[in-house]
Amino acid sequence: MAVSEERQAKVDVVLERFFSLAKNRASAFGPEYVHLWETLESNTTGGKRFRPRMVFAAYEALGGEDFEAAAYIGAAFELLHTALIVHDDVIDNDFVRRGVANISGAYRDLATARGSDEKAAQHRGISAAVIAGDLALFNSYRLIDRSGVADNVRSRLIEVMDDALFASAAGELIDVDFATAPEMPRVDDILTMERLKTAVYSFECPLQAGAILAGASEEVVATLGDFGREIGIAYQLVDDLLGVFGLEAETGKTTLGDLREGKRTVMISYATSTAEWDSIEPLIGKHDLTEEEAASVRAVLTSCGARSFAEGLARYYGNRALARLAEPHIPPALRVELHPVADAVLGRVK
Amino acid sequence: MAVSEERQAKVDVVLERFFSLAKNRASAFGPEYVHLWETLESNTTGGKRFRPRMVFAAYEALGGEDFEAAAYIGAAFELLHTALIVHDDVIDNDFVRRGVANISGAYRDLATARGSDEKAAQHRGISAAVIAGDLALFNSYRLIDRSGVADNVRSRLIEVMDDALFASAAGELIDVDFATAPEMPRVDDILTMERLKTAVYSFECPLQAGAILAGASEEVVATLGDFGREIGIAYQLVDDLLGVFGLEAETGKTTLGDLREGKRTVMISYATSTAEWDSIEPLIGKHDLTEEEAASVRAVLTSCGARSFAEGLARYYGNRALARLAEPHIPPALRVELHPVADAVLGRVK
Repeated sequence: MAVSEERQAKVDVVLERFFSLAKNRASAFGPEYVHLWETLESNTTGGKRFRPRMVFAAYEALGGEDFEAAAYIGAAFELLHTALIVHDDVIDNDFVRRGVANISGAYRDLATARGSDEKAAQHRGISAAVIAGDLALFNSYRLIDRSGVADNVRSRLIEVMDDALFASAAGELIDVDFATAPEMPRVDDILTMERLKTAVYSFECPLQAGAILAGASEEVVATLGDFGREIGIAYQLVDDLLGVFGLEAETGKTTLGDLREGKRTVMISYATSTAEWDSIEPLIGKHDLTEEEAASVRAVLTSCGARSFAEGLARYYGNRALARLAEPHIPPALRVELHPVADAVLGRVK
Repeated sequence: MAVSEERQAKVDVVLERFFSLAKNRASAFGPEYVHLWETLESNTTGGKRFRPRMVFAAYEALGGEDFEAAAYIGAAFELLHTALIVHDDVIDNDFVRRGVANISGAYRDLATARGSDEKAAQHRGISAAVIAGDLALFNSYRLIDRSGVADNVRSRLIEVMDDALFASAAGELIDVDFATAPEMPRVDDILTMERLKTAVYSFECPLQAGAILAGASEEVVATLGDFGREIGIAYQLVDDLLGVFGLEAETGKTTLGDLREGKRTVMISYATSTAEWDSIEPLIGKHDLTEEEAASVRAVLTSCGARSFAEGLARYYGNRALARLAEPHIPPALRVELHPVADAVLGRVK
């Protein structure tokens, strides 16, 4: 995939330049501020660059040729992603993401090393993460501004970015409410939450931004939004399945975490409606769930039909996504580009 | 002050329109999201509209006539202010601001009323505040975008807004570090922190934005920045003095809060260098400080010279601010407009 690597490299160059300027500017405020920017940078780099890939997929397939501008838009979505996960970790009181200390964790550890007690160190970690997330959020906007695109395009791109944050904030709020609600949310409420919190800014908006940048018709932009919505929901369903049934070596995250946390997923919500639920209920959200207990939960989620329900739903949304690509106004090149995206999502659950 | 009220009304109209659109848009995501926007709105309205006043002061005195555009810029700074205080309250774990429940507090109380325990309710409050602050921050940018000003002006205004956030984040970080540092920070470090955290976005940047919008020369814009810096530092010094020596009826905040919190101010930092410090050290940061103990702290802060040192420093910065207004390239109308701003700051400490 030489093309994909080339794309990713352009986004990385934009981000490197952005952080280099920011660190330089921060140095006037002292080394601690430079360190905050360095920490934000290391929390932005090394990812899969998923959202930039969506921008480029739509942009290139629709004939776009200004890869510098596309890299700025891709980088803007990457920075928005950083902002959202940094603040999501603040909300969830998480100090680790995928096995590595996040911003809260890095600053907590620094404070601990300097002699702060645990509570003070955690507080310092969370404070730094609130600030860093604000900087990332504000600058995601700035990167669109600096892309050098024509004003009418810039203004539409900013609206798309606005849609992304607007939806994501709504989804995060629903997610927070789920955590305190006494009853298990319904399957369709979980789908809505996951779509708003993650799928809109990860699929719908980056694809639409790429299309707008390429000067695509409103019809194509709208269909890409629809495709992104369907495939984004499928992705979340698959992600939740892998969070319980995946292989740690492949997903990079433990398959105990979601169960211990009692994460409210479509699969779990479905399971509550079955007769087997009573047998696993005490184990869902059990903070010290053992491997053996997890294995018994997995067996019940499979036997009660929850797993195959979630898999079926993922395939349903994946197929709906593919159906959008088949619409006559979708250029063949775009179809060729996005079909593998849908296949990759569904391939993870086969 | 009919003019001032007229100004304020224009800013309020922009904010009302903005929130009305946002609430309307949020209704598609359910009543809980509308409620978040309503809470954000009520945390944005009713303030002194200080930053919009700075924008208008510079803009009108420099001959600006597009009050609709100025109102958008003023509203943008007001929303930035909301974002910063909402996230500052998250960092400080505050659920109340000036005697009224803030966003964290409103959501905590809501969760308590719905039966959540204290810890869960606080967590829900803080989570809502993180999300609401993000929305305010992002949209402060959007309001500049929507002001309808020419692109070159818009781009400069956004740079000023960027400067405001960049400095404020640096100041917040220093403030967080102060709280965990074992030793009392030096007077000049406290001045730097207060300038960065508050004065830049409250004085320097709004004044500069007003001047840029009015098409002022670079020289005038730069001098307004200098004036804003000096008067902003004076304002912080006075504010900290009033936090200990003010009248609650006038300032609207308790004169026990800063002492109980152990807030590191210029006055306190100065006091640590005096022989009397030992007698009050155990009382600074004492969470249950009584009125009698506070009275003895006030007496010592006065007798040791800390109070008059801080007052003298405030006057020094106030006079430096006035000196900038006396520069020949400053139009008389601007001088007439801003002299009372400086007088008002210094008048609070007389």
